[in-house]
Amino acid sequence: MAEDHRGAMMAAEIAEQPEALARLLTSESLGRVRAVAATIRARSPRFVLLAARGASDHAALYAKYLVEVSLGLPAGVASPSTMTAYGARPDLSDVLLLTVSRSGASPDLIETVRTARAGGATTLAVTNNADSELASAAELHLDILAGPERAVAATKAYSSQVLALWLIVDALRGGDAAAAHAVPEAAESLVARSDEVAALASRYRFTDQLVTTGRGYSFPTAREAALKLMETAYVATNAFSGADLLHGPLGMIDHDHPVIAVVPDGRGAEAMQPVLERLAERGADVTVLGGARSTMLGSVGYDLGCEGVTEELHPVVDIIPLQQLALQMALARGFDPDVVRALRSVVETL
Amino acid sequence: MAEDHRGAMMAAEIAEQPEALARLLTSESLGRVRAVAATIRARSPRFVLLAARGASDHAALYAKYLVEVSLGLPAGVASPSTMTAYGARPDLSDVLLLTVSRSGASPDLIETVRTARAGGATTLAVTNNADSELASAAELHLDILAGPERAVAATKAYSSQVLALWLIVDALRGGDAAAAHAVPEAAESLVARSDEVAALASRYRFTDQLVTTGRGYSFPTAREAALKLMETAYVATNAFSGADLLHGPLGMIDHDHPVIAVVPDGRGAEAMQPVLERLAERGADVTVLGGARSTMLGSVGYDLGCEGVTEELHPVVDIIPLQQLALQMALARGFDPDVVRALRSVVETL
Repeated sequence: MAEDHRGAMMAAEIAEQPEALARLLTSESLGRVRAVAATIRARSPRFVLLAARGASDHAALYAKYLVEVSLGLPAGVASPSTMTAYGARPDLSDVLLLTVSRSGASPDLIETVRTARAGGATTLAVTNNADSELASAAELHLDILAGPERAVAATKAYSSQVLALWLIVDALRGGDAAAAHAVPEAAESLVARSDEVAALASRYRFTDQLVTTGRGYSFPTAREAALKLMETAYVATNAFSGADLLHGPLGMIDHDHPVIAVVPDGRGAEAMQPVLERLAERGADVTVLGGARSTMLGSVGYDLGCEGVTEELHPVVDIIPLQQLALQMALARGFDPDVVRALRSVVETL
Repeated sequence: MAEDHRGAMMAAEIAEQPEALARLLTSESLGRVRAVAATIRARSPRFVLLAARGASDHAALYAKYLVEVSLGLPAGVASPSTMTAYGARPDLSDVLLLTVSRSGASPDLIETVRTARAGGATTLAVTNNADSELASAAELHLDILAGPERAVAATKAYSSQVLALWLIVDALRGGDAAAAHAVPEAAESLVARSDEVAALASRYRFTDQLVTTGRGYSFPTAREAALKLMETAYVATNAFSGADLLHGPLGMIDHDHPVIAVVPDGRGAEAMQPVLERLAERGADVTVLGGARSTMLGSVGYDLGCEGVTEELHPVVDIIPLQQLALQMALARGFDPDVVRALRSVVETL
């Protein structure tokens, strides 16, 4: 039996993140980012549309927040089905369509890029495969340089997507990417703390549902964590923005429905304080990953640390303990995150 | 004990929907819609941003699809936190900002409208309260005429929002709203079929998690159904678009994790066929609400019927059996959907 090796590929790719992120920060890579940004700036787009699927969709959502806040441009997440299933042919002049995909092979994204290009959009594909059809279909391409992926679940590709998107937006606003140089070391420090995550995974050994939450830049982290927990540990997980959580789903949350809140210090954390207070009032079981002030409000706290990492860049690394949590919860439940699961009944006979 | 009355307000408002929808279709109401549309058309917006919270957010998502497909304009769902928490001040000239809110009282939406107006956007608020602060903050207002709401969960307000948004988009494309006249009768026919839903509710008596799915115009219905099930019956429910479901969460679905698919006939249903087939292959337990071809692919089928209702308008009424399901599941589990729930431990002592 190969039991010792269960999850080995996912674990290896989680651990590779510091190195993968550093590859995006070499001067050669930064030069490519600047070149892409220069072409986009010359077009002066008025709107930004993002299109992606699965984990990449969460990286795209992160980019949407960043574009709105730091470029002052309205942005939206495109619904590929409007073009692919309903034949929409929107006028996309002045639009930047940014697609995010690990493989660059998703047929509906390829079709979306082609339709958008025909509709006048400037198209940029951010992928982990420069030879992909998506990379060719788009006018511009940026390689996230995450290296070959062997695991089923996206881990290093996700953090690399988030960093690549930050680099593009930073270049578009004329930045020099300086803030990003703190990121690989921060990733290294989080990767090394898997023992702390093991305690958390043990606490969640028998829950079959979880809620994740965050606001602003951290909402995509909450969503990506939920997806990872669902596709790796098969735990039904709902992600809510802190604001939406107070609008109804709160009734579902009690001490038997644990919550994981992602609250790195910053303006998103300020907006999350009333949510954390409300959850505490209700006696909810909340694990807070965040700064000192926020972790105090949780039943369990995981101090993210990462000194020198700005609020904007926290989402690159904050996902790491949540990836570790998904992996460890999967292993504790007898699943191998490195194999695509058929029906559970089959897996259970292993 | 007032046990007989549990859920009476929610049940009454579900039953009121045919009447509420008909109020939006009087010539007086349609005249107001046309006037709002005329002002918007004179501005020739290039981009539509939607902003909403909770159930209204699903109505906004429906409008986003409709705008993209039938107006050929790019559209996006605004993230209020970028303006409220992060202070984004985007240039919104050429933008229509459409906010959707039952009460019109949500502070972050009010702030978003004020910021957007200052940034040059044309602002339209769709609310159920013409005297609300949101209605005054926006340049344009449309009343959904759903009447006073006493229940906690949005039911009639949701279907009225969806119809009001369809009417606006139809007026923007120069339509005469004719197709909508089939809607109140279709709503009536669905309201009358609560016995069929009771069988479904009984089948789900002991599940503590559900997945809902749909594509295109029906994805917002799937999301609204998930919210209703969570806030009324406290069942952890995940909504996935059919496309995203195949990207990873599928692994979580087996015969113990039931799925509800919303698949009224049309192009969205065509795009859903491979998803239904894949679920069937996996032996998943799937209830299909839809047309004859789709219901055949489910473990259980609920034929939506509603002859004469177009694919675009189906989402106005398709939510009705799902509202009934949430209500009946809540009652079967001993919850009163008419009261805001505190901690479950408190409710359990009733």
